[in-house]
Amino acid sequence: MKRVVLIGSGNVATSLAHGLASRCELAQVYSRRLSHARALAEAVGCPAATDDLGALVPDADAYIIAVSDDAIAQVVSAVADNGALWLHTSGSTPIDVFCGHRQRCGVLWPMQSFSREVVTPLDDVYFFAEGNDEAALHDVTELGQMLSRHVTAADSDQRRWLHLASVFSCNFANHLWALADELLSARGLPFEALLPLIRTTVDKLDRLTPAQSQTGPAARGDRRIIDSHLAMLDGEKRDIYRLLTESIIKRNPQDKNAQ
Amino acid sequence: MKRVVLIGSGNVATSLAHGLASRCELAQVYSRRLSHARALAEAVGCPAATDDLGALVPDADAYIIAVSDDAIAQVVSAVADNGALWLHTSGSTPIDVFCGHRQRCGVLWPMQSFSREVVTPLDDVYFFAEGNDEAALHDVTELGQMLSRHVTAADSDQRRWLHLASVFSCNFANHLWALADELLSARGLPFEALLPLIRTTVDKLDRLTPAQSQTGPAARGDRRIIDSHLAMLDGEKRDIYRLLTESIIKRNPQDKNAQ
Repeated sequence: MKRVVLIGSGNVATSLAHGLASRCELAQVYSRRLSHARALAEAVGCPAATDDLGALVPDADAYIIAVSDDAIAQVVSAVADNGALWLHTSGSTPIDVFCGHRQRCGVLWPMQSFSREVVTPLDDVYFFAEGNDEAALHDVTELGQMLSRHVTAADSDQRRWLHLASVFSCNFANHLWALADELLSARGLPFEALLPLIRTTVDKLDRLTPAQSQTGPAARGDRRIIDSHLAMLDGEKRDIYRLLTESIIKRNPQDKNAQ
Repeated sequence: MKRVVLIGSGNVATSLAHGLASRCELAQVYSRRLSHARALAEAVGCPAATDDLGALVPDADAYIIAVSDDAIAQVVSAVADNGALWLHTSGSTPIDVFCGHRQRCGVLWPMQSFSREVVTPLDDVYFFAEGNDEAALHDVTELGQMLSRHVTAADSDQRRWLHLASVFSCNFANHLWALADELLSARGLPFEALLPLIRTTVDKLDRLTPAQSQTGPAARGDRRIIDSHLAMLDGEKRDIYRLLTESIIKRNPQDKNAQ
């Protein structure tokens, strides 16, 4: 698994290109826009760039499709199978996008939010690997392990659960911060004041499970504070406070509440 | 404001002692347990320790009460007013705990989660200051500015809103992580995989408001993904998903949803 072609020049492809170029032979970068392919290839010292799917180098060991979800199927059907390992990097696209088109194929999904402007180091990113058979899974995993210390097998169904968990962990947590911002802004108080506290809450997850590190009025079963908070809120914020508080209380045994 | 007495040796007092000792004259540490007072005083190079509220040095400029919420009133009534500035460090205790007992008093609340085992640097912690009059607020603020770059005036009512916002931002966000952990553990997947993504979500708050940095299916108005997620969930997790998704959608204009 030495010679790799990267198809894409966007958010995921940019960080992948940097990781690949330093750990294997990145033979070529493809982008629909030649200037993007050239810029990314040049940035990582890759010798070839193209905007023509018919001009992909034919003899690479692996072809990594890191384009937008909608465009994966087009790339797959536009290029004939050459017997190499083909994989995509999308969390939400099933492996069967390759169905009938490739003998050896898989998915290598880096579970991180990437941006074209920032090269993200991949060593600590969790990659989830899938292959259309054991041998392909082995090769996808090996490719992942060149990039990261964390490569775990996960099929398309498990990726759906990971994506759902990331919605709770990131999108929904961020929305709670937006609600806190609304509460504070309305009273002339700075949301930034919460950032050190938020960071401390995240840092605890290095040592404890989130259930273990749960604190606050609900975890203490402190009904006096809970009632005073509910009286300060109305509408959806009150509904959200109540629902999350009940969900926390349910998981905290009475003896802990009594402390 | 040079000579300070610290009353307490717990979670908040430990980090305060280190901050105070390096920036002013920390004259004495009090704790109900002499061994605790001595240990903390020694750790920060403070010359005096006591377990006797009657033996507090009488001529300090400020007395900082950093004990548990329940014990503040006892300390206040156990010691006669000496005309110095007296303050407590509790977010949830109103300033009127001093009512009738002190001429010059206030609150200096560091909004951070402290632990006795870890000395937290205070420079970046947000402190909220209150005084029983303008002069006291000035003195409390000055004391806070010796410890931190972020000192903001906030009265007891504003502190209640800050505390409520911290419940949303920390306790509730942490519970979403606990729910994500449950979703993943049930399928043999590691919660740790989410940590890089959670950290990236927090890091974005250095540059954007949480409303600006909101991403995910709800922010995109992606009904196909939202419906497939709801079909994967049941019970309270489904209720929480639905409520938070509706709350996000409400804040995202249609033109953004259409992207």
